[in-house]
Amino acid sequence: MFEIRTDLAVEEKESFPGDGGEVTGVTLREWSRAFSKIKMTEVAILDEQGARAMGKPKGTYITMEAKALAKGDEDYHREVSGELSSQLKRMVKELKKQGKMPDRKELHVLAVGLGNPSVTPDALGPKVLGNLRVNRNMAEEDSVVLSGIVPGVMAQTGMETAEILKGIIHETGPDLLIAVDALAARSIRRLGTTIQLTDTGIHPGSGVGNHRHSLTMDSLGIPVLAIGVPTVVGAAAIVHDTISALTGTLASYSQTHEMGDFLERLSPDEQYQLICELLEPEFGSLYVTPPDIDQTVKQLSFTISEGIHMAFFPAR
Amino acid sequence: MFEIRTDLAVEEKESFPGDGGEVTGVTLREWSRAFSKIKMTEVAILDEQGARAMGKPKGTYITMEAKALAKGDEDYHREVSGELSSQLKRMVKELKKQGKMPDRKELHVLAVGLGNPSVTPDALGPKVLGNLRVNRNMAEEDSVVLSGIVPGVMAQTGMETAEILKGIIHETGPDLLIAVDALAARSIRRLGTTIQLTDTGIHPGSGVGNHRHSLTMDSLGIPVLAIGVPTVVGAAAIVHDTISALTGTLASYSQTHEMGDFLERLSPDEQYQLICELLEPEFGSLYVTPPDIDQTVKQLSFTISEGIHMAFFPAR
Amino acid sequence: MFEIRTDLAVEEKESFPGDGGEVTGVTLREWSRAFSKIKMTEVAILDEQGARAMGKPKGTYITMEAKALAKGDEDYHREVSGELSSQLKRMVKELKKQGKMPDRKELHVLAVGLGNPSVTPDALGPKVLGNLRVNRNMAEEDSVVLSGIVPGVMAQTGMETAEILKGIIHETGPDLLIAVDALAARSIRRLGTTIQLTDTGIHPGSGVGNHRHSLTMDSLGIPVLAIGVPTVVGAAAIVHDTISALTGTLASYSQTHEMGDFLERLSPDEQYQLICELLEPEFGSLYVTPPDIDQTVKQLSFTISEGIHMAFFPAR
Amino acid sequence: MFEIRTDLAVEEKESFPGDGGEVTGVTLREWSRAFSKIKMTEVAILDEQGARAMGKPKGTYITMEAKALAKGDEDYHREVSGELSSQLKRMVKELKKQGKMPDRKELHVLAVGLGNPSVTPDALGPKVLGNLRVNRNMAEEDSVVLSGIVPGVMAQTGMETAEILKGIIHETGPDLLIAVDALAARSIRRLGTTIQLTDTGIHPGSGVGNHRHSLTMDSLGIPVLAIGVPTVVGAAAIVHDTISALTGTLASYSQTHEMGDFLERLSPDEQYQLICELLEPEFGSLYVTPPDIDQTVKQLSFTISEGIHMAFFPAR
Repeated sequence: MFEIRTDLAVEEKESFPGDGGEVTGVTLREWSRAFSKIKMTEVAILDEQGARAMGKPKGTYITMEAKALAKGDEDYHREVSGELSSQLKRMVKELKKQGKMPDRKELHVLAVGLGNPSVTPDALGPKVLGNLRVNRNMAEEDSVVLSGIVPGVMAQTGMETAEILKGIIHETGPDLLIAVDALAARSIRRLGTTIQLTDTGIHPGSGVGNHRHSLTMDSLGIPVLAIGVPTVVGAAAIVHDTISALTGTLASYSQTHEMGDFLERLSPDEQYQLICELLEPEFGSLYVTPPDIDQTVKQLSFTISEGIHMAFFPAR
Repeated sequence: MFEIRTDLAVEEKESFPGDGGEVTGVTLREWSRAFSKIKMTEVAILDEQGARAMGKPKGTYITMEAKALAKGDEDYHREVSGELSSQLKRMVKELKKQGKMPDRKELHVLAVGLGNPSVTPDALGPKVLGNLRVNRNMAEEDSVVLSGIVPGVMAQTGMETAEILKGIIHETGPDLLIAVDALAARSIRRLGTTIQLTDTGIHPGSGVGNHRHSLTMDSLGIPVLAIGVPTVVGAAAIVHDTISALTGTLASYSQTHEMGDFLERLSPDEQYQLICELLEPEFGSLYVTPPDIDQTVKQLSFTISEGIHMAFFPAR
Repeated sequence: MFEIRTDLAVEEKESFPGDGGEVTGVTLREWSRAFSKIKMTEVAILDEQGARAMGKPKGTYITMEAKALAKGDEDYHREVSGELSSQLKRMVKELKKQGKMPDRKELHVLAVGLGNPSVTPDALGPKVLGNLRVNRNMAEEDSVVLSGIVPGVMAQTGMETAEILKGIIHETGPDLLIAVDALAARSIRRLGTTIQLTDTGIHPGSGVGNHRHSLTMDSLGIPVLAIGVPTVVGAAAIVHDTISALTGTLASYSQTHEMGDFLERLSPDEQYQLICELLEPEFGSLYVTPPDIDQTVKQLSFTISEGIHMAFFPAR
Repeated sequence: MFEIRTDLAVEEKESFPGDGGEVTGVTLREWSRAFSKIKMTEVAILDEQGARAMGKPKGTYITMEAKALAKGDEDYHREVSGELSSQLKRMVKELKKQGKMPDRKELHVLAVGLGNPSVTPDALGPKVLGNLRVNRNMAEEDSVVLSGIVPGVMAQTGMETAEILKGIIHETGPDLLIAVDALAARSIRRLGTTIQLTDTGIHPGSGVGNHRHSLTMDSLGIPVLAIGVPTVVGAAAIVHDTISALTGTLASYSQTHEMGDFLERLSPDEQYQLICELLEPEFGSLYVTPPDIDQTVKQLSFTISEGIHMAFFPAR
């Protein structure tokens, strides 16, 4: 088996035949905000069958998409922050209803900025944390107590992020963890234009830095909401897309229809497997990113930190 | 009572009458490296009486001083790294002899970069960690296993550094903690020219960021070696020095000898107390730092990380 | 003579006897925004006599003050940006009226971020430039063409900022230069709560990094508007304040009234001179800054960049 | 026509049939340092015919290659710095002989760090400049006067780098420009393991940030030596490699030999052209980079700055 090709559930869903047709155990709901033109999608993976088909754990994945996110319009970003805030609140409410969190106003939330602050497309999480206004150290009247940590990546710490967080949770006892991370997408069109919010936490192989251990309620003992923005595309995904296009093109040359036939007989997974075998071994970890990624990461870090502020400190 | 005026034991010692004369319970040993012109000082606080007199906990404080540290001579920095490495090894040996650490080659060392990475004179610890090559995540044949963390400061995390470290130690079980921190000195001549190594850990009120909780064997359960470089002088210290000089100057004017008398009758502590009362309340936390502090911090971060590498990975 | 004690004209004015009484050749106008509680001050230095008295060149100095600036309230910062924008537009209009700039809509503005990006309290200018959206490289319909540069400091470039800017102006031909810089204040209460806008440019000895050459219409050939925020207080200023307080206190002790007399007989300048003589030679360049300066600089960098955007790109 | 596939002359040469066989107007010389195992290559493009064949301007391209560069061995990096220094001195001597620079000891060298400091793989140049010790602002007895600038990228400045440099050269009159830049390679094996030094300057389309205007003796009036390290591979190059491998693999399936035939009948340029057509339009500017690029860039920035120091300040 090979690594997950996309961190976005909505892309995984689209990859099914019939442009994301029916998958047993998976529901899809789409709507949009007329005014802001944010396209909303909710993929719910309902059972083990759905989880296996999607290669992602059971749970809810909400995607906010807007091309305009790639531009620096501040008012627009404010609307997206508002939408993120609403969805966050809805998920917190649901967690309370499910008994996974105490049902009181006074919550202690630990925000975590995953990724490597020194690598631009991986720095989203650390940048969001840099914008957050924590208050656990103050005697405030806010009902929510917010703390935050940037644990660094394993190459810098020698430790699994899960180890670091387990220890901090053990000492400080938060009720909820919100993990912010840069994601890998399947399509370059998603880079910097999509925000995914999920109640399933962070899983091995996900994120730009490819986490090895999961950050979930199972592993950490408290619910984990994950907010992510795709900032890279795996190099293998790009190669795959090009070859698909190539196959199509070549099929139109009569003398090569057999080649087209051959490739088309392979399932997408087999095609991907073949590509991975052809690629250099070092290649697996390479990623593709646009040259203006610094601006994208900076802007979206504010959009997300504002969304978190609006969800937990409405009066500020 | 008021805060400690200097994080350097050697300065505290010098502040005693007779230019640092005999203090019961405190020994002083000075030597120097002929070749490298590094001036070495060891202040040992032997008992509670010494601790009270010095306002610092019992233990050993080794200072390496060299004016040339302020310059960018790489070969010179290498020698200082070597000296730091020797002293580190000596302290580790001593900790093993005292039974505070397991007496085996295979040690797990957790390095901690204290301070705020975004405030230049406070960024020494984070910068040293950025230079360290951790190996806990690799299957290496090194006898020492090194991990590292930059916990951030309370204004960013909402958590005490002690809480974060306790949690991480609980999860990963290191044998020794090495904390690197920027210090406050008494004299501007020490800025960037002195390295202090101590086996007493980090104490409330020390460091540029003024830690509130101690990081010691008592609080964390494992021995804590602290490496520090003064990068700031408390604003109050500067005022005090100037007033001392002023008093001296004024004493030479006949009509003001009574003023000189008055101030001289005050003990240094009373003088300092008076100054603190006169200063603005906000003033206490202000610090003084030179404009080229970025270069100093960058250079010394390599000197210290090399010293740590040389102590634990001699073969590298 | 000694260096200027403050970069803020409003503080210079206040330092005159009678809490900033009449000074020939200098006018003072104060008003405030009822809603936003921004306190506005305009100091106009009208002639050479005023310039000599103030130790600052002829021209207009507008100060926006608001304690709330030190807090992270975004809506409030937006109001200050609006106010800055209005004042900027007023100054540009005035420059056009005076014939110092072409009176057309299509302006080419070069923004300059002065200071050292690696030293937190000196990084305001570079951070503002990081937020600006330049458009000279695009075929936009904006009437204003904006370019920008972060020239670095002399210790990094070996060149005077004036040399670098003269060259760039020579090649690219802007109509107006807007210089953003971190300033030194006289009082710690001003740190991060005041914005100064002036049409006199940047002068030797001003700024945290102490520019050696002036950036003015005379030296660069185009008008220079300077926007600054105090982020440091000179160490000598702090010492002076404390000694003033000390003198007052001591005067109440009968036996030292002669000392009080002595110091009070000195003019403020003589007092300051005495302090400078008592201070270490290295001391002159030291500065005092609060530990949360990173947050202040980050926040105000957005306030200023937004003010510039609102002035030149109202439709964005 | 499409963009240059590699900034490395040695890779361009290798791409010719016969694994880089004879090309008219181009000479190749290879040697190696027995002790350090640095593989040296000199590609000299002698005339217009060679320039057209190689798609690169006339001049000398020296490549230093060593796998060990990717590792953090400091002593090894010192040797590479020494080698870079020798080659730099050789080129300066040659420039003097050709009358392109004054033949005296007292030279004024302007170092330029190209690229975007906020995008990790593009930050090599700015980081090298951060390590350089300029001295133009000091009264030193060094025979070489060094100044330096980090001009930023056009998206940040709105200006062409060539405009900024022309202006600075006009004002400060250096004899030689040394430009340091991150490069795009053809093969991922080159990333961080190769340094290229050339006397041809910087050309449109080269570098990670894809310069639009050339920085050469023709455009700037003084000779330009360029030092570069590949930190990215163009996404298109990666796709091309995989398809080549795919073609080979498919050729072994009997039913698809016609496809192999078809693709093999295309010249490499035609193959590349086909890929570019298949790729998304946005795709052209995407780059591929490894996740540990931050460490690579940091280390090599010291190797290069040391090489420059050793060349011009041997006594330091």
